[in-house]
Amino acid sequence: MDIRTIEWKNDAIKIIDQTKLPAKLEYLYIKDLKTLWQAIRELKVRGAPALGTAAALGVYLGIKDSKAKNFSEFRKELDKVIKYLATSRPTAINLFWGLKEMLQAAEKVKFKRLAEMKKALFKQAMKIIEDDRVSCRKIGLYGAKLFKNNDTVLTVCNAGILATIDYGTALGVIYRASEEGKKIKVFACETRPLLQGARLTTWELKKKGIDVTLICDNMAATLMQQGKIDKVIAGADRIAANGDAANKIGTYSLAVLAAYHKVPFYIAAPVSTFDLKIKSSKNILIEQRSAEEITILFSKNPIAPPGIKVYNPAFDVTPHDLITAIITDKGVLRRPYKINIKKCI
Amino acid sequence: MDIRTIEWKNDAIKIIDQTKLPAKLEYLYIKDLKTLWQAIRELKVRGAPALGTAAALGVYLGIKDSKAKNFSEFRKELDKVIKYLATSRPTAINLFWGLKEMLQAAEKVKFKRLAEMKKALFKQAMKIIEDDRVSCRKIGLYGAKLFKNNDTVLTVCNAGILATIDYGTALGVIYRASEEGKKIKVFACETRPLLQGARLTTWELKKKGIDVTLICDNMAATLMQQGKIDKVIAGADRIAANGDAANKIGTYSLAVLAAYHKVPFYIAAPVSTFDLKIKSSKNILIEQRSAEEITILFSKNPIAPPGIKVYNPAFDVTPHDLITAIITDKGVLRRPYKINIKKCI
Repeated sequence: MDIRTIEWKNDAIKIIDQTKLPAKLEYLYIKDLKTLWQAIRELKVRGAPALGTAAALGVYLGIKDSKAKNFSEFRKELDKVIKYLATSRPTAINLFWGLKEMLQAAEKVKFKRLAEMKKALFKQAMKIIEDDRVSCRKIGLYGAKLFKNNDTVLTVCNAGILATIDYGTALGVIYRASEEGKKIKVFACETRPLLQGARLTTWELKKKGIDVTLICDNMAATLMQQGKIDKVIAGADRIAANGDAANKIGTYSLAVLAAYHKVPFYIAAPVSTFDLKIKSSKNILIEQRSAEEITILFSKNPIAPPGIKVYNPAFDVTPHDLITAIITDKGVLRRPYKINIKKCI
Repeated sequence: MDIRTIEWKNDAIKIIDQTKLPAKLEYLYIKDLKTLWQAIRELKVRGAPALGTAAALGVYLGIKDSKAKNFSEFRKELDKVIKYLATSRPTAINLFWGLKEMLQAAEKVKFKRLAEMKKALFKQAMKIIEDDRVSCRKIGLYGAKLFKNNDTVLTVCNAGILATIDYGTALGVIYRASEEGKKIKVFACETRPLLQGARLTTWELKKKGIDVTLICDNMAATLMQQGKIDKVIAGADRIAANGDAANKIGTYSLAVLAAYHKVPFYIAAPVSTFDLKIKSSKNILIEQRSAEEITILFSKNPIAPPGIKVYNPAFDVTPHDLITAIITDKGVLRRPYKINIKKCI
């Protein structure tokens, strides 16, 4: 199986439309910024690292037809594109990191001709893609050492191929462990409201031949109570300087349950997920999404009375003291996180 | 609002078809045992206390047209009915309790004429209905004393009007507290896979004018982390002699999260929920339900790849040490549960 979540192809951003999975594997060719913005907002492309790539390719898409006469004009266009893409989703830092990387690449060639500036930005986007591929494999390499033969692992949301270019962070660790011959069994939390676990994680694990069992989010505690879970592993959308990690809603719940049942709880993410400007979880902006995401299934089936109040945070924050280790592309970090995160960047 | 979840009417068991809520308030008139068995299995009628009533009315339904010539013949028919109904769902003890109550009532009149035996069973079923109404109000009365003005309460599944005759256990406590003038705010966990929280609890709380907000099950931890939950309250399907309580899947998870966040965790249930034959949770049979309940939403929308493995326990067990108090119709029980449960029965 060779799946590419996002790439540049035929002068467009080619993505898997993840809202169509698991029913259909459908690709979209995105040729304008507004369509990209909506694809990000509607989670057609999602997953923190993949959003970094989407942002980078988006910047190139936004300026590739520029007719700017000088850098000042070009920079104005660039700023507009970056500002626009930055409004698509607030929590995953990788998106902002991708935008920043592109801006820095533009700054480096600001005295060059327009065609060269465009070329430099394209090159930078390709570098981000290649770096993602490499960093996921490094996360897999370092993380796999923590996993034993016959381990049963619980995961949430999708931090796999579909959240990156082609390998995954949390699931990359599982792929690597199983490539090393370890037999790993996975329980996937379905991850309400948008069911990324049920729709995406089971889909890609099954394709990769990994033994996967789907559960509802509220069944994780029971599995731990029965001693059936050896490890929990999740991705991250933003990690503060002290190790507090924002990730898909439900992650914090698993971290508390894991601590109570003495099950190790791991976060797997590239170092681009660290946000040293943010000291602790208190400063992480949590995206609140619409009530209908919860109350209307498949855009048509109401599961709650009309007009019912809903609380729908897309992410939660796991405090660093509940995290056994953070598996990064620069190695496995342990406490004290504040010091060890600083060291590795 | 005057809602009756289950009653005897027009020579039939009249129930609200709870699988149709919240879209439609639709009543069913059940005139044969097989239809009743299916209605219980498919959760058209559900909730531990309501299942006790359904069982009792079911026994009457099953023998009301009997032409038995003597008690021995009658008893054979009765046993067949009871045995059949006992196979509908395994975890809620109230169902078995209802069957046992009816059997005992029959034994008391075994030397009477057929018509009188039938009458005695009808009377017993009516008594069970009336007792449920009274006991829910007592649970409400005792439980409400534990709740303060402006409390925010988290609940799971539906332990309300729709789980009883007309008042509820866990939600009965909230109704009583609000009748006493206390302002109570409720967060309802949607309760996957069958969404009783989203579909039923929000529906009845809204009808009763209680401030209710719907969340996905995996958001409860975040609310507790933010200090937004003052109390958790849930029903129970069976409580062992030591206080271990089986209830809808997800309850145990909330109990662990509540303990971690130092939030009181209450179980509300009539004393008929106690099963003194069962010493601890280890002996409670947990119903496993079909994979499709999780993977196919609304019997048509697949949310996971075909054939994916699923783990779908309908209940979990909360060990007694995580329960702050058990609110019953005989008062509020606290530790040591083993002694205090024995005392109150």
